[in-house]
Amino acid sequence: MTDETAALTARIERLEHELGRLQDESAIRKLQYSYGYFIDKSQYNECVDLFADDAEVWFLGGIYKGKAGVRRLYIERFQTQFTQGHNGPRYGWLLDHPQLQMVIDVAPDRNTAQVRGRSQMQAGLHETAEGPQRAWWEGGIYENDYIRGADGIWRIKALRYFPFWHGSFAEGWAKTPIDFIPMASTFYPEDPLGPDAPVEPRPRLWPATDTIPFHYPHPVTGRPIVLDNSRAREGFKD
Amino acid sequence: MTDETAALTARIERLEHELGRLQDESAIRKLQYSYGYFIDKSQYNECVDLFADDAEVWFLGGIYKGKAGVRRLYIERFQTQFTQGHNGPRYGWLLDHPQLQMVIDVAPDRNTAQVRGRSQMQAGLHETAEGPQRAWWEGGIYENDYIRGADGIWRIKALRYFPFWHGSFAEGWAKTPIDFIPMASTFYPEDPLGPDAPVEPRPRLWPATDTIPFHYPHPVTGRPIVLDNSRAREGFKD
Amino acid sequence: MTDETAALTARIERLEHELGRLQDESAIRKLQYSYGYFIDKSQYNECVDLFADDAEVWFLGGIYKGKAGVRRLYIERFQTQFTQGHNGPRYGWLLDHPQLQMVIDVAPDRNTAQVRGRSQMQAGLHETAEGPQRAWWEGGIYENDYIRGADGIWRIKALRYFPFWHGSFAEGWAKTPIDFIPMASTFYPEDPLGPDAPVEPRPRLWPATDTIPFHYPHPVTGRPIVLDNSRAREGFKD
Repeated sequence: MTDETAALTARIERLEHELGRLQDESAIRKLQYSYGYFIDKSQYNECVDLFADDAEVWFLGGIYKGKAGVRRLYIERFQTQFTQGHNGPRYGWLLDHPQLQMVIDVAPDRNTAQVRGRSQMQAGLHETAEGPQRAWWEGGIYENDYIRGADGIWRIKALRYFPFWHGSFAEGWAKTPIDFIPMASTFYPEDPLGPDAPVEPRPRLWPATDTIPFHYPHPVTGRPIVLDNSRAREGFKD
Repeated sequence: MTDETAALTARIERLEHELGRLQDESAIRKLQYSYGYFIDKSQYNECVDLFADDAEVWFLGGIYKGKAGVRRLYIERFQTQFTQGHNGPRYGWLLDHPQLQMVIDVAPDRNTAQVRGRSQMQAGLHETAEGPQRAWWEGGIYENDYIRGADGIWRIKALRYFPFWHGSFAEGWAKTPIDFIPMASTFYPEDPLGPDAPVEPRPRLWPATDTIPFHYPHPVTGRPIVLDNSRAREGFKD
Repeated sequence: MTDETAALTARIERLEHELGRLQDESAIRKLQYSYGYFIDKSQYNECVDLFADDAEVWFLGGIYKGKAGVRRLYIERFQTQFTQGHNGPRYGWLLDHPQLQMVIDVAPDRNTAQVRGRSQMQAGLHETAEGPQRAWWEGGIYENDYIRGADGIWRIKALRYFPFWHGSFAEGWAKTPIDFIPMASTFYPEDPLGPDAPVEPRPRLWPATDTIPFHYPHPVTGRPIVLDNSRAREGFKD
């Protein structure tokens, strides 16, 4: 190979690699957006299939570990609780999870990726459906990890959902009860539907306003994004 | 051409093609987002120009076919109904159509594409504007097709909007009246503003919760995404 | 260099340039999304760092010019007003700024870019926090400019936020008071927290419905997007 050809080959290799990273970005967007569409409609089997075998899910202060933990959360807990064991939507139960504002960072080696994203939910029960009446808005942040398998397919490695604010449709975020939804306090296997471990430090819901750590440095300065949550919980009486 | 050069040329051609697909993705995002911005402001002429000549629009159980059908819907129907024949916004009429969560799949040959997306609307009339008072939230799913013309320009080939839930600002999605907005039941030319054909199977609005078929297979397993809508309408009394 | 090699080199150069533009698009998305995440949590120092030295911010009818103007707005005004001088969130104060629907256009020379985007906000104070009780929804449009520095880093050159509609959580967009938030009417240095100059023509809030000019031509016809705002303010009594 001539020097010239070697130089062109090196440029082509770099192009292939960087193009691949943009394709990864697109694939991860599709993966996480699909998660949103599946959760909307209680397609829990399809959700579980999005995760890597050694994945974990952080939810309301608990960590569900491995594929067994993922199944426990989506199938044994959510599917039972929300759709009475049915893998699909049921009449009059809304659970829309729009996925937005995803900052996607693919590692230079293209084997892993991280995403900061958010959801802005609408959820609740129609008055003609069976079950306790409720209707709420919810906002939350994701800080997720993804992994590309030997088969070239991206999967969710860690889904860390931090619900931030809840507001009932009637009263909104100004009147959300303190500790509106309890954080995980019992664990598997003692609690057969519980998570495997607690999230540390313990998260707390709105009106706490803690900032979730960013997986990436400041996009202009390149410095770590330092958080000051010193006033995020100062109004609690306990 | 040497073998070496031929091999480099083949890699370059593949790069050009795959880069082109990512550029297509970006162009389609811009196209559909522009649709959203135009609809926000009742720029109906600009909307119509986004469609291919043989396009179709699915809306509330009816299919509007061809450019004539597209014009009938946006110009003759919406422009008359919403802005009194004006190609632009009118005072006190809100119709925001944020476009989000678009899964964009460009065909390998780069001539067609498909998108699953969603909107999360805010709409209604201000109390100081003329007309019947109403204010509502709306969530809906798109499953759209796009086509790239001989001129290299992407256009909408099929816009299929499936409104899912509506909720008045006052009462929300827990109290949406059954069959809140009627599905198309009369057709063109008998109904001069009607669609050309019905959507089959007949869609039904929230509290029905039918899942709209996905244009793409499961992103990890590669298998078709099978829907179970068997319980999506079980609460209706009729 | 042979003719063949020269031709391959030219194709590689074009690929590198066009791939770079897609990478720019991704970098700008990350930049603006980060702005959103920082604003959510009153990380005002981190916001200011996103701007170029000669940047400007358009906000409620006023233009804040240069890094000094940007600091005046985010640090001296917002940080004082919203978080009592604290660079981070405070208990019970919600200010979520989801960033969505960004049409990103990178200039052919890759040195500048423009974005049309939107936010759909949730804001207000929890009843257990100190301060005047309020809770509102807000929708708005961005038409922003970005610049790539000699260091290869993208920064915000002009952030032009046009809030469109506001609605209190209790009453919504049907009952928004006319001129709900006053436009800038005093200027720096007379007003030590004021903008440097007014936005012309003077914007007006909902129920005005003016369309913000598009930075880009119609994506299909290529013609300028002509706005007809002749009826956008016709209902005002003054």
